[in-house]
Amino acid sequence: MGKPRDFEKPMGVRDWPPEAVAQKRWIEKRVEARFQHWGYREVMTPTLEYFETVGGASAIQDHKLFKLLDRQGQTLVLRPDQTTPIARVVASVMKEVPLPLRLFYHANVFRAQEREAGRNAEFYQSGVELVGGDTPEEDAEVIALAVESLQACEISPIQLAMGHIGLLDGLLMERLEEAEAVADLKDCLGRRNMVEFRERVEALELNAGEKKELFSLLEIRGTREILGTLRDRAASRRTREAINHLEAIWEALEDWGVASEILLDLSLVGSLDYYTGVYFEGYGADGIYLLSGGRYDRLLERFGRSSPARGFALKTDRLVEAGGDKTREKMEHIALVYPRRLRRKAFRQAKKWREQGVAVSMHVKEAGSLPAEERQRLDRIVEIEGDDDD
Amino acid sequence: MGKPRDFEKPMGVRDWPPEAVAQKRWIEKRVEARFQHWGYREVMTPTLEYFETVGGASAIQDHKLFKLLDRQGQTLVLRPDQTTPIARVVASVMKEVPLPLRLFYHANVFRAQEREAGRNAEFYQSGVELVGGDTPEEDAEVIALAVESLQACEISPIQLAMGHIGLLDGLLMERLEEAEAVADLKDCLGRRNMVEFRERVEALELNAGEKKELFSLLEIRGTREILGTLRDRAASRRTREAINHLEAIWEALEDWGVASEILLDLSLVGSLDYYTGVYFEGYGADGIYLLSGGRYDRLLERFGRSSPARGFALKTDRLVEAGGDKTREKMEHIALVYPRRLRRKAFRQAKKWREQGVAVSMHVKEAGSLPAEERQRLDRIVEIEGDDDD
Repeated sequence: MGKPRDFEKPMGVRDWPPEAVAQKRWIEKRVEARFQHWGYREVMTPTLEYFETVGGASAIQDHKLFKLLDRQGQTLVLRPDQTTPIARVVASVMKEVPLPLRLFYHANVFRAQEREAGRNAEFYQSGVELVGGDTPEEDAEVIALAVESLQACEISPIQLAMGHIGLLDGLLMERLEEAEAVADLKDCLGRRNMVEFRERVEALELNAGEKKELFSLLEIRGTREILGTLRDRAASRRTREAINHLEAIWEALEDWGVASEILLDLSLVGSLDYYTGVYFEGYGADGIYLLSGGRYDRLLERFGRSSPARGFALKTDRLVEAGGDKTREKMEHIALVYPRRLRRKAFRQAKKWREQGVAVSMHVKEAGSLPAEERQRLDRIVEIEGDDDD
Repeated sequence: MGKPRDFEKPMGVRDWPPEAVAQKRWIEKRVEARFQHWGYREVMTPTLEYFETVGGASAIQDHKLFKLLDRQGQTLVLRPDQTTPIARVVASVMKEVPLPLRLFYHANVFRAQEREAGRNAEFYQSGVELVGGDTPEEDAEVIALAVESLQACEISPIQLAMGHIGLLDGLLMERLEEAEAVADLKDCLGRRNMVEFRERVEALELNAGEKKELFSLLEIRGTREILGTLRDRAASRRTREAINHLEAIWEALEDWGVASEILLDLSLVGSLDYYTGVYFEGYGADGIYLLSGGRYDRLLERFGRSSPARGFALKTDRLVEAGGDKTREKMEHIALVYPRRLRRKAFRQAKKWREQGVAVSMHVKEAGSLPAEERQRLDRIVEIEGDDDD
C-alpha cells in the first residue's frame, strides 16, 4: 500500500461542495420543521463512545465498528448508530426527565466497510426517538411522522413496508422447536437473503407441508385484511397479541390518513437486532431505501432505565439524491465591485443589502476583474461609481 | 483500569440535552446568516482524514491527534481542525472553481487530551475561509465578519486582538541570528507562556539593551499609532512591508466601522503554526476566548493549489456559554390530550396547529395523565372533548 497522495481522503468518506451541502441542509430543515411541530426536541451525543457501552448495545456487527484506543487504554468506537447513544442519554443525563420523551437528531454515523463494497463509511441520518408509553398510538405516531417527513422532502410515490418482529418470532416459533433455528431464519431475512432462507428451511427436519408453511411467510403481504387471516391461524397467545397490536397501529394510521401508503410485509426484519415489535422501512420511486425504524423495548434496560421505545432514521444521503428540487429557496447573491477610493461607500451599500437578506460579496476593482465562472454563478454584479461622498 | 459502566462516555466528550442543543443551534443560525450574507457558502468534509494528508498539515501536535487504522493499514485521524481539510477540498474536488472562494462550515473537531487537563476532546467550530486574493481588503473582510459574528451572538463587550506573524518574525530576526531561537521564542508566545519567554531571552547571548528590546516586544499594544513608531525602528524591508500591510488592513477596518473594537498586540501568535500574516483573536466579557483566525499563505500549496488565504473559527461551545438569551425564539408547544374515541378529531386539530407553526405532542387520555414536569414545560395543555364528528 503506497503513501496516500495529498488530495486523497479515506475510503468510503466524501467531501460536500457547496451545492451538495445546500441540498443536504434543505432536507434537514424540511424534516426538522416536522419533527419540531410534532413536539420532538433535538439532542446531540459525542462522536466517540466506549466500545463496552455503546459498541455492544448498538447491534452493529463488530467488524463494522471503527475502533480506537484512548489514553487510558479503553476501546472507543465512532458511533455506529444514534439510537443507542440516545438510549444512554435518556438513562443518564436525562434520567430525571419523565417519560414519554420525544427526541430528534441530525447525526453522522460510521461503519467500516470492505474495500470491495464501495459503500459509505460515514453517512448522515436525521431521526426521532419516542421513549416511553406503550400504546399503539405512540407506535403509529412515529410511522405517521416518517411518512410526513418523506412527504416534506417531496418524495413521491412513498411506500412504507411494515412488519412486526414479535409476530414473526411467534409465527416461526409455532413452527420450529429450536430458538437457534428461529434466529438463523430471521438473520437471513434481515439480510434480505431469500435464497439462503429457502436453503435453511429445506435443511430443517420438517415435512413438506411444514416447509411450505414457512415459505409462505415470505408471501404474507397486503393491507389490514391479512391480519384477520393470520389471527384465524394463530396458535399462541403471543402471536395473537402481536396481531392485535399491529391491527391497532393500523387503525391509528388510518386516522392519521397515511394507511394508504403502507403495506404489511411480515418477512420484514431490521438489520439491527434490537427491534422487538413493529418494524418499518420507507422507500421512494424505484424502491430506493430511505428510512427504517421500529419498536425496541429492551435497549433502554441495558442502561438502567427500562422502557418501551420506538423511532426511525432517515437516510439523509439517499434523500439528497431522491428528494425534490432543493435550490428554489436560494438567497439572492450580488457581487459588489468597487474602486478603492469608494470603499467606504461600497461597505455601506453592502451593509444595507445584507440587512435586507441579500448575499453580497465584495471585490476591489484594482485587484482585477471577476472570473467568468463567478460572474455566471451570481445573480447580479453591481459596480460602485461616482464620487466618494465621505 | 476498570470496565466502563453503561452510562459512561469517554473522557472529554459531552452529551447535549435539548436545552443545550437549542442554544447551540441559535448560535449557529445567527452566525450562519451573517456568513451567507457576506457571500460565503457552506462546505462539509469527512470526520476521518488520512494522517499523511491532513494530520501533518494541520499543525496540531501529533500526540493530540486521535488516530486509528483503516482496513488497508493506513493511519486515519479524526480531523483536528477544519481549515486543513477545506484547503484539501479547494485543491481537489473544487480545483476547477476559480478563486477567490468564500466558504464556511459548522464542524466538530477532535483533540486527544491528557486526563488531567479536563478539556474537550470533541468541540464545535463555525468558521469561514476566504481563499484567493492578496489585498488588505480581503484580510480586513474576515476580521470585520468575525466582529459582526460576535455581535450577532450578542457578545458585549467585544475585544479583538490583532497581530502579524510575518511582522513578529521580522522584528525577532532583526534582533536574533538564529532561526531556531526565533522559533523557540514564537513557540513560547504561541503557548502564552511569558515566563518561559523571559527565561529564554535571558539565556541568549545578547547584551542587556538587546534583551530589553526583545522584552519590549511583549508590550507593543495599541491602535494604529504604534505602527508609525514601529516603522521608524524597522530595519528590514520585510518588516516594513508587514507594517504597511497591517496599516492597510487597519484602514479598511476603519471603513467597516469596526476598528474601535480592535487592539494591536504584536506578541500575538496562534497555536497553529500555519499562520503567516495577520493573526487575530476575539474575546468577550472577562476575556473569554471566543475565536481565532488569520492569514495562511503556505497551506494550500501543500495540496497543489498555491494561494493566499485567511479565515477564522468561532469556538461554538464557549459562545453557547457567553452569548445572549437564546430561548426567545422558542416555538409554542401544546400538549393535546384526547380520549381514544375522539382520536381522528384530535389528529385533525394537531395537523391544523402544526401547519400554523405550533409544536403539538399527542397524549392518549386512557394512557394516564401527563407528568407534572411535562405540564410545566409546555405552553398549553388542551383536552379534546365533545362528540366524535366522524
